[in-house]
Amino acid sequence: MDVSDYILQLGKQARHASRQARALSTDEKNKALHSIAEIIQARRAVLVAANSEDVQAGRERGLSDAMLDRLILTPERIDGMLEGLRQVADLADPVGEITDLSYRPSGIQVGKMRVPLGVVGIIYESRPNVTLEAASLCLKSGNATVLRGGSEAIHSNRCIAQCITDGLAAADVDPAIIQLVTTTDRAAVGAMITMPDHIDVIIPRGGKTLIERITAEASVLVIKHLDGICHTYVDKFADLDKALSVSINAKTQRFGTCNTTETLLVHQEIATQFLPRFETQIASFEVELRGCEQALAILSKATPASSVDWATEYLAPILSIRVVESLAAAMTHIETYSSAHTESIITQDYSRARRFMTEVDSSSIMVNASTRFADGFEYGLGAEIGISTDKFHARGPVGLEGLTSQKWIVLGDGHTRA
Amino acid sequence: MDVSDYILQLGKQARHASRQARALSTDEKNKALHSIAEIIQARRAVLVAANSEDVQAGRERGLSDAMLDRLILTPERIDGMLEGLRQVADLADPVGEITDLSYRPSGIQVGKMRVPLGVVGIIYESRPNVTLEAASLCLKSGNATVLRGGSEAIHSNRCIAQCITDGLAAADVDPAIIQLVTTTDRAAVGAMITMPDHIDVIIPRGGKTLIERITAEASVLVIKHLDGICHTYVDKFADLDKALSVSINAKTQRFGTCNTTETLLVHQEIATQFLPRFETQIASFEVELRGCEQALAILSKATPASSVDWATEYLAPILSIRVVESLAAAMTHIETYSSAHTESIITQDYSRARRFMTEVDSSSIMVNASTRFADGFEYGLGAEIGISTDKFHARGPVGLEGLTSQKWIVLGDGHTRA
Repeated sequence: MDVSDYILQLGKQARHASRQARALSTDEKNKALHSIAEIIQARRAVLVAANSEDVQAGRERGLSDAMLDRLILTPERIDGMLEGLRQVADLADPVGEITDLSYRPSGIQVGKMRVPLGVVGIIYESRPNVTLEAASLCLKSGNATVLRGGSEAIHSNRCIAQCITDGLAAADVDPAIIQLVTTTDRAAVGAMITMPDHIDVIIPRGGKTLIERITAEASVLVIKHLDGICHTYVDKFADLDKALSVSINAKTQRFGTCNTTETLLVHQEIATQFLPRFETQIASFEVELRGCEQALAILSKATPASSVDWATEYLAPILSIRVVESLAAAMTHIETYSSAHTESIITQDYSRARRFMTEVDSSSIMVNASTRFADGFEYGLGAEIGISTDKFHARGPVGLEGLTSQKWIVLGDGHTRA
Repeated sequence: MDVSDYILQLGKQARHASRQARALSTDEKNKALHSIAEIIQARRAVLVAANSEDVQAGRERGLSDAMLDRLILTPERIDGMLEGLRQVADLADPVGEITDLSYRPSGIQVGKMRVPLGVVGIIYESRPNVTLEAASLCLKSGNATVLRGGSEAIHSNRCIAQCITDGLAAADVDPAIIQLVTTTDRAAVGAMITMPDHIDVIIPRGGKTLIERITAEASVLVIKHLDGICHTYVDKFADLDKALSVSINAKTQRFGTCNTTETLLVHQEIATQFLPRFETQIASFEVELRGCEQALAILSKATPASSVDWATEYLAPILSIRVVESLAAAMTHIETYSSAHTESIITQDYSRARRFMTEVDSSSIMVNASTRFADGFEYGLGAEIGISTDKFHARGPVGLEGLTSQKWIVLGDGHTRA
């Protein structure tokens, strides 16, 4: 079968299955999740063997160590996958929640009910555990799913998908609710992102190139994460001890994550007090510092930052530092260079915190806290399918609620419009 | 200047002005709205003269009476526009509302803050009052706006836009927050819908052809309303008196609106009791009835409905009627033919009402109420910029809240991630 015909068939099956998916009770969904976990537990040896095929093929194709590491399913990772399934089963079901139901002057009651989106397409790269994680979140939120993983993990993914299919069937749930694209043909991606009649939303997870390509070519809504160029701004009214611990944590707690601070903005009135202490304290983390002219005059070991630095997500032990003349200048820098992911102000001044919080337009705005907190688990979502840097539908960490929308409900008792 | 350069310039100005727009206080926005109202009131004669130019040009170009009627600004309509401005000023400001702020185990507080979308592009047809209505809703919700009205109303729109500009300036608000496209070149629309860097969302208002074209060509998110193929389903456990008044109201209260019922579904067990009474009572409204085979056997004056009827939004005194064998069959009919706008079930049975409400996937689901209630004013939104038949961001009637999104806020006091 032609790839686009094959994807179209998956899409039609998914659309059809989405009717059952949205009508599943919480109990039915949880039973299905546990049933999938049991089957994976019973087939661990099969899964490890399938994964070994991927790892060996990857070695032969010369994948980097980092990519091989993402690919491999150790016993601990399989345990983690199973634990993840149970955690999703334990999460509250967002579907059907009714809010804001109130009487109107006409006598009708009007409110909103949370409902699944429909069919979610997930396009991701080499990590096979995403297959199970994404599938479980979509199932719990009442959606049908079409999963398209990277070709490097195809044997692992097929094995996991078979466990999902058998787990759903054992729980009397239509297996078409969760389908894996089993071809490694790259044309499958192009087909998935251009059939809005069958797939309601695409969530890409992977490198920036993949995501930019999908966004440019999709005719389906995309919930995406592009850059994480996050800022910590140390205000002139900052408590410098808090500023030190927060900004160092924001840069060094992990270097490769999207919520790591990449640029430190420092108010000029406290720069000469703050920056030397900062430089001393961050020294043990071996972070390369790149500064603006004013910062260079204060720091002892920094190199000059070019305008490219302000627009770069390093994902590495590098930090750019800029001294700013005012809160307004800090906000203008953020407006210009931020990827609208996460920004934090360190200040003891109430009015300035309030202004920063209101006026800065990023998905997470923090006061006196490390940007590293921008995360679905830290926010209490229980799980995270991604972090959106878009403005619509879902902003910031996306959990189960981000996989739903709200419809209106109206309760009358024979009411007619006058 | 080239049209696309001109639109690009408007877009850049709007993006820049959106920073001021989102920082405006409620009081500043309300003063600006009143200031615009005062200027329009002072220039009524100028506005009427400008509108007369449009009407005369429309007559010369042979516009239909319906189109000329939409174009003309009577004294009552101008009063209505002014009253609308004052009502928008009276609405609660959605911007800055913080919800769900709660402590997490780490000690940070996490919540959500409602924020403007940014820059909203409105593309509409001949009614000049939309210019003021859309502008006022976007301003109140803290957005910058680019308005592109129909060429038939260009003189009226330019006059209204000048009043807006002067009103904003008099209230010390950047006039670039609300800009009108002053060229009638159709290429302006194509340019507006393909500059996601400068316009965040497009709201088209007008005929289906316009909206389909915009949706197909836009690279910007579109909040749109396509069809209104709404259903009323009279269940076998319906109170037939309520069923009669609700279904007749849903069809006849107005024929040309999107929330008018176009197809009546009737459970076969009550069809012989219900349909003759329905036919008698709807007779005075001169509605043409088209029925399925079973309905035709009961109705005395109906003609056969073809499969085209189930998929047609009549916007006219025509109703298609289908007898169904079960609640499930009614829901399958709706799933197949509905435009996902509004559906109502008439039943006294609790479980069947609950099931219909949960499983039917349309933007408004009603129980024992007329579909004609699907309206921003009836729902208590205070105003309505449109009704969305999309699933994302805004579903159903879209008021001020639909012109906003939510960002996360995190309050700490020197908190770092462990």
